Amino acid sequence: MSIFTWPVRVYFEDTDAGGIVYHAQYLNFMERARTEWFRHQEFQQNQLFKQNIQLVVSRLSCRYVRPAVLDDLLEIRNSIIEVAYCTMLFKQEVYRQDELLCDGEVEIACIDAVNLKPKRWPAKMKTLLNEQMVACSGE
Amino acid sequence: MSIFTWPVRVYFEDTDAGGIVYHAQYLNFMERARTEWFRHQEFQQNQLFKQNIQLVVSRLSCRYVRPAVLDDLLEIRNSIIEVAYCTMLFKQEVYRQDELLCDGEVEIACIDAVNLKPKRWPAKMKTLLNEQMVACSGE
Amino acid sequence: MSIFTWPVRVYFEDTDAGGIVYHAQYLNFMERARTEWFRHQEFQQNQLFKQNIQLVVSRLSCRYVRPAVLDDLLEIRNSIIEVAYCTMLFKQEVYRQDELLCDGEVEIACIDAVNLKPKRWPAKMKTLLNEQMVACSGE
Amino acid sequence: MSIFTWPVRVYFEDTDAGGIVYHAQYLNFMERARTEWFRHQEFQQNQLFKQNIQLVVSRLSCRYVRPAVLDDLLEIRNSIIEVAYCTMLFKQEVYRQDELLCDGEVEIACIDAVNLKPKRWPAKMKTLLNEQMVACSGE
Repeated sequence: MSIFTWPVRVYFEDTDAGGIVYHAQYLNFMERARTEWFRHQEFQQNQLFKQNIQLVVSRLSCRYVRPAVLDDLLEIRNSIIEVAYCTMLFKQEVYRQDELLCDGEVEIACIDAVNLKPKRWPAKMKTLLNEQMVACSGE
Repeated sequence: MSIFTWPVRVYFEDTDAGGIVYHAQYLNFMERARTEWFRHQEFQQNQLFKQNIQLVVSRLSCRYVRPAVLDDLLEIRNSIIEVAYCTMLFKQEVYRQDELLCDGEVEIACIDAVNLKPKRWPAKMKTLLNEQMVACSGE
Repeated sequence: MSIFTWPVRVYFEDTDAGGIVYHAQYLNFMERARTEWFRHQEFQQNQLFKQNIQLVVSRLSCRYVRPAVLDDLLEIRNSIIEVAYCTMLFKQEVYRQDELLCDGEVEIACIDAVNLKPKRWPAKMKTLLNEQMVACSGE
Repeated sequence: MSIFTWPVRVYFEDTDAGGIVYHAQYLNFMERARTEWFRHQEFQQNQLFKQNIQLVVSRLSCRYVRPAVLDDLLEIRNSIIEVAYCTMLFKQEVYRQDELLCDGEVEIACIDAVNLKPKRWPAKMKTLLNEQMVACSGE
C-alpha cells in the first residue's frame, strides 16, 4: 500500500504557552514527511533545484482534531491523491499511535526557480507520480 | 468598514533557502494580526486564559498566490465572516501594497482551558462578535 | 547617544509549553533589531546581497535574566562595541520597560556571498561603522 | 566515553534566504539533543514538570564555523562539563560527518515551576549528573 509514514518527536520549540503544539508547526511536520517521501523516491529537493525546478506549496487546508503535547511521538502519513500538469496533491495525517490529531491536504506546485512561473513536471518525476497514483487507486 | 489591518515586516527568520517566505510562516503573520485584532477589541488572550478560556485554531485553509521576500513590508487584513456557538471564522489576506500574496480562512474555537472541550463564547465576547458581523454585513 | 531601540511584541509563536518565551526566540528578536538598525543606516541586507556581500552571525553569547511572557511589549537595544577588519560586535539587550530580561553579544561577519569566505567591509559601510563607534566612545 | 550524539536532518524550515541554516535554529537542534539525553537518562521534562521543576536555559554561547545547508544530516554531540548547586553546563557541538560546523556551551538552570526561582537539583538527578561528570573526567 502506498502510504508513506515519518516519525516526528515534539520538542519545546514546537509548543506554545497554551501547553500544546502551535498550529503552524504541524505544517512543518508535514513538510518534513513530504521531503522524506521525495528523498525515499530519490528526488532530493536540492537536486531539483540544480535543474532550475523549485517545489512550492500553492494551497493547503488543515483540520485540528486533538492537540499534540510535549514529548509526544507523532507519525505523519502521506499519500498522493491527485496529479495534474504542474501540481500534485498530498493528503497528510498526523497520528499519535492510533489517534488522529490533525489532517490536511497540501498542494505542491512545480515552478521555474528563475522566473517563479508554473512549470510542467519533469518527465521522470511525472512517471513516478503516476505510478504512485496507480498504487493508491489500486489499494 | 470592518476590516482590521496589521503591518508585518519580513526578516531572515521568515525566509527559507528558496529565497522566499516559508509557507507556514504566513500562518504566524495571520495569528499576529488576529491577536492584535483581539487586543484592539480589548480582549487580551491571557485575560481570557484567566477565565479558563483558550482560543485555538480548529481549521484553516490557505492559498499562496505570489511569494513575499526578505525586507517586504506586508499588510495582513482580517475580517470576521461567520460566528457560531463556539467558533468564529476569520478571512485573512496578506498584501504587499495592492498585490495579494496569500489569503485564507482560519476558524477559531473557544475551548475550556482545563478539559480542552468546546465552550460557548462568553456573553461579552459574543456580543462583540455579533456587532462585528453586523458591521461586516453592512459593508 | 548611539543606542538604537526596536519594539517587539510577544505572540503565541514565540512562547513554549513552559509558558515563557522560548530561549532561541530572543535571538530572532535581536536580529530584527539589527536589521532595523541597518535599515535605519540605509543598508538593506538585500542591497548588500546584490554587491555579493552577505552578513552572517559568527559568534554570540546570551544571558537570560528574567523570562518574557505572552503579550509582553519588549524593547531591543543595540549598540556597536567593536569593529574589526571583517567583523563587528553588537551588544544587545532585551528590556520590558526598565527591567532587563536578557542581554548578549552578537558578532557579525562580512562574507563573500559566492565563496562564503570572510571579506573586508565595503568602504562606505566601514566609514559608517567607525562613526557609530566614535558616537559610542563619546557617550 | 560519555558523549551523547543525536542526528538532525536539515529541512526547508531550518534554512533562510542566505541559503544556509538560520543561526538561531542551531539552538533548537542543541535543545533536541539535550532533551534526548535527558530522555535517555529517563528524565522526561514533563515528569520533572509534575514535580514542579522546570529546566530553563540561563546562559549560552555559540560559535559558527561553517554553515549547514538544506538536506544535510547533522550530528549533535553533548557532554556535561560542569555541575553546580542549581545549574549544569553542556558542551554541544554540531558536526556534518567529521566537520565541525558550530559549537557552544549551554547552561541549564533548575527552577521552581511556580515562583520561577532557582531550585536545588532533585537528589536523584544530582546523583545522575555527578556520575556523568565522573564518566567525563575519566575519558
